[in-house]
Amino acid sequence: MIKFEILKTSKKSKARVGRLTTDHGIVETPNFMPVGTLGTVKTMSPRDLNEIGAQIVLSNTYHLFLRPGPDIIREAGGLHKFMNWEKPILTDSGGFQVYSLAERRKVKEDGVEFASHIDGTKHFFTPEKVIDIQTAFGSDIMMPLDECVPFPCDKKVAQDALVRTTAWAKRSKSYVAGKEGPTLFGIVQGSTYPDLRKRSAEEICGIDFPGYGIGGLSVGEPQEEMFGMLDVLSQVMPEDKPKHLMGVGFASDILGAVDFGIDLFDCVIPTRLARHGSFLTLEGKTSIRNARFERDFTPIDPECDCYACKNFTRAYIRHLFWAREILSMQLLTIHNLRFFMRLLEKVRKDILAE
Amino acid sequence: MIKFEILKTSKKSKARVGRLTTDHGIVETPNFMPVGTLGTVKTMSPRDLNEIGAQIVLSNTYHLFLRPGPDIIREAGGLHKFMNWEKPILTDSGGFQVYSLAERRKVKEDGVEFASHIDGTKHFFTPEKVIDIQTAFGSDIMMPLDECVPFPCDKKVAQDALVRTTAWAKRSKSYVAGKEGPTLFGIVQGSTYPDLRKRSAEEICGIDFPGYGIGGLSVGEPQEEMFGMLDVLSQVMPEDKPKHLMGVGFASDILGAVDFGIDLFDCVIPTRLARHGSFLTLEGKTSIRNARFERDFTPIDPECDCYACKNFTRAYIRHLFWAREILSMQLLTIHNLRFFMRLLEKVRKDILAE
Repeated sequence: MIKFEILKTSKKSKARVGRLTTDHGIVETPNFMPVGTLGTVKTMSPRDLNEIGAQIVLSNTYHLFLRPGPDIIREAGGLHKFMNWEKPILTDSGGFQVYSLAERRKVKEDGVEFASHIDGTKHFFTPEKVIDIQTAFGSDIMMPLDECVPFPCDKKVAQDALVRTTAWAKRSKSYVAGKEGPTLFGIVQGSTYPDLRKRSAEEICGIDFPGYGIGGLSVGEPQEEMFGMLDVLSQVMPEDKPKHLMGVGFASDILGAVDFGIDLFDCVIPTRLARHGSFLTLEGKTSIRNARFERDFTPIDPECDCYACKNFTRAYIRHLFWAREILSMQLLTIHNLRFFMRLLEKVRKDILAE
Repeated sequence: MIKFEILKTSKKSKARVGRLTTDHGIVETPNFMPVGTLGTVKTMSPRDLNEIGAQIVLSNTYHLFLRPGPDIIREAGGLHKFMNWEKPILTDSGGFQVYSLAERRKVKEDGVEFASHIDGTKHFFTPEKVIDIQTAFGSDIMMPLDECVPFPCDKKVAQDALVRTTAWAKRSKSYVAGKEGPTLFGIVQGSTYPDLRKRSAEEICGIDFPGYGIGGLSVGEPQEEMFGMLDVLSQVMPEDKPKHLMGVGFASDILGAVDFGIDLFDCVIPTRLARHGSFLTLEGKTSIRNARFERDFTPIDPECDCYACKNFTRAYIRHLFWAREILSMQLLTIHNLRFFMRLLEKVRKDILAE
């Protein structure tokens, strides 16, 4: 079970500071969820995550379904115990990953058939099945199966996906009725069509979930279009429920989305960029490989309080990166995630200080 | 400067417990030095190293000479500061790595010419040059240039290498005379010929160094041959000086070598095996990939007190390894190094308890 309280709403926008209480602890919102695709946030141990201030992580149902599979996670005592993470976990439904498989998946009325990206084995996800899987994980928050569409997307295609997403949301809601288990959110789709977004929000919120994911954004559309959709949604969706803008994003996306009342974010950007040698600051991303850092004996970001910035220089991390040393990826990941944590800490602080 | 004290010698063998005091702290001997080839023990942060109880690390002159180069390390304030490691550092001379280059190196009377394994650029190491490099690093203990030979090795070749190693050791000793800098050890060679080992030990120890490396072992010879050489050396080398058996080894090598009065060990085995998915216990090495660990929710080693064993199961680490998650390498490295630390802690304790 979850509880969501709004502690303060901004005077300037729909931004708010809230508190999401779960069985595994409290998440201060707005917040960013590091992505632990396969039951680990890449290169990070749980104590690293605690140190950077992570309050919740997101894991991917599609990936964990394929490896190690829900049975092993259930037998381990659930995902928290399996990965030794005591704080909240939100799992997605696999809908987005299956969408990413493109021609390796086939959407049917009953669910979606797909071929594993690992070994090509065929699988079929239904709304009920992804709930069973996430129940095996013991997630705090789970997502229903949805259908994400690419950008740009023909309106008819987007509308068909919306209709299916609503139908699946209803089936999902019925399936969990009266059962113990993770808290089920709804997911709003509708591509970049204001009327479809509005319709999806009305339909999904009409089913009445304790929280909502906003899917199908940050899939290639310009930032203004994304903000336009959030504007539409902010006028339709209930203010008292937590809203998760799925898969978003860059710092500027997050700062903008907060103003439309978004409470939760997740994205692989900070971790993926780190593994490719880039660090994040308020100025954007910078590659540590750059020759100008060869003799730069200052921290990645002098303002940052993370383990990497407190203990190592750009010259050292650059050396590690060129030498393909794993420690470079760890240090950059620690910094990039801490950067996002600090960004959201500041957002919360600024709203509270208004 | 270093100081070496023997606290207790075993009644059953030449094994002893000692204390090596350096400018960066104390090393209890016998001890194992994790290998930080490129200024980082692969996958480990300095705090991880502190946590497993590492008291000293070994870094490789050859690798650090090529990347990032001694100038950058000097400008960073030395290797300790560059890699943020406050405890002692021993650097090898590059002799072994250059030997490993095989046909990419040419031994001359004055030194050794070699082509970088990275980009083929030509370099020339002389006894004086490797001292300059290690002085730039600010190592606590440095090694002189030596010539290592393969196993098996023609006696004439081994003898020529021995003669050159002695000549280079003399040049090295003269070169550091009256200078501030790292403490220079000598290196004994002589392949697996008892008379050559004895001769090398007499020549090198005759030059009088504050400590000695024993090189050219664990290069493919049977363990008994290695122990045979250590037996010969234990009768010739001074008992009051610290002895480092370079590049050794497996747990059984270490336990045997301790009885011949060896004080320091270093080896890439625990870290390399970890990255390839194997964990070490007293029974030897075991691959975490093994199917029998799929549902094994016990720690790698229930006896072990490391972070990996205290917090994660074999099933989880196996999953991480198959999913190519870096955390698996980190956890296995932490365990394997801690296993070696505990092994040497027990050796010291047992001798003291005799």
